[in-house]
Amino acid sequence: MPPPAQSPRIDKITPLPSHEAKWIEFLKLDWTDQNGKARVWEAAGRKTRGSSGVDAVAIMTILRHPSRSPATIIILQYRPPVDAICVEFPAGLIDADETPEVAAERELKEETGYVGRVIGMSPTVVSNPGMSTGNMKLATVEVVLVDEDIKPKQQLEEGEFIELIIVPLAELYERLVAYSAEGKKVDSRLWHTAAGLQLAKQLQ
Amino acid sequence: MPPPAQSPRIDKITPLPSHEAKWIEFLKLDWTDQNGKARVWEAAGRKTRGSSGVDAVAIMTILRHPSRSPATIIILQYRPPVDAICVEFPAGLIDADETPEVAAERELKEETGYVGRVIGMSPTVVSNPGMSTGNMKLATVEVVLVDEDIKPKQQLEEGEFIELIIVPLAELYERLVAYSAEGKKVDSRLWHTAAGLQLAKQLQ
Repeated sequence: MPPPAQSPRIDKITPLPSHEAKWIEFLKLDWTDQNGKARVWEAAGRKTRGSSGVDAVAIMTILRHPSRSPATIIILQYRPPVDAICVEFPAGLIDADETPEVAAERELKEETGYVGRVIGMSPTVVSNPGMSTGNMKLATVEVVLVDEDIKPKQQLEEGEFIELIIVPLAELYERLVAYSAEGKKVDSRLWHTAAGLQLAKQLQ
Repeated sequence: MPPPAQSPRIDKITPLPSHEAKWIEFLKLDWTDQNGKARVWEAAGRKTRGSSGVDAVAIMTILRHPSRSPATIIILQYRPPVDAICVEFPAGLIDADETPEVAAERELKEETGYVGRVIGMSPTVVSNPGMSTGNMKLATVEVVLVDEDIKPKQQLEEGEFIELIIVPLAELYERLVAYSAEGKKVDSRLWHTAAGLQLAKQLQ
């Protein structure tokens, strides 16, 4: 991937009228609570959910190498909503008629070039249920490497800039701490995975 | 906590006009990408962020008991955006002038009754940076129990119904799989923590 020609930047932030939104929607939920009281909740959601019933899939890659410890792939990309380089698992929206499994292998190949096999798929989990209708699945994808360091080629769309980093799983937590310290923003789901790995170490 | 008098329900879902939203906001981001091209991104965010600069805190409790293996606390509550009982870490919004540490100990006490001490605080991580401006921190809170099973009293607000469950950390993953199978919706952050714990087991 050629280096980006310039740094991305936010030029203007304005309120988004609901009727102009193409990708996300804003909902007013009238609901009745456990005491029978009528209440209102505000929510945001994606408008792109397809036949799978799931918005998105994230990919926890397990890179197996004959002589190295198991590693995973994380990606660095600029995200306009937080105006920062974010550190995330590879992930993407599931296409209209796609299964989560197919989406996981496709997104991994597009964003990283690596070809893997889905060896685990989470139940459908809710992204942020206090304010969002969004949901997702976490796929575990195994990539088996031969004893060489061939870097596969990403298949990015025009205007997509994604840097990929291979991190030994045993070092994931420390690497995320270091990225945060240098001003990158770690995705909450990736952080929680690392927190689980780290907690397992502490409990041993 | 007395059992809820009735099941909560969604009565009506309507589009939410931006100017009516009290808790969340919808933003149109005009930005310039790495090739110098002008682009637009749609984002949602909370309007409640205070002086800490962080929207919310989630709490990974470590319950220490003299004769039992380490456990954590998860909560079950109805969430209107997904119209389901969700399974989550205790969590809440950080008040306007509150630190994340104070918010973590306060929310844990309100939602579960347990009094703990913050022993770890994550960097500020971004909740869902593809569509949200939201951010959060994950606090690790230690609760030391004496050798008795005194259940402390929750301090819930009127109309709040939260069931708490104590789960040995070694069983967290399987318990979340079981909750999903019975139709409850697991929060993505809690799932990823359990996925990290489970992955650590598989790598041993």
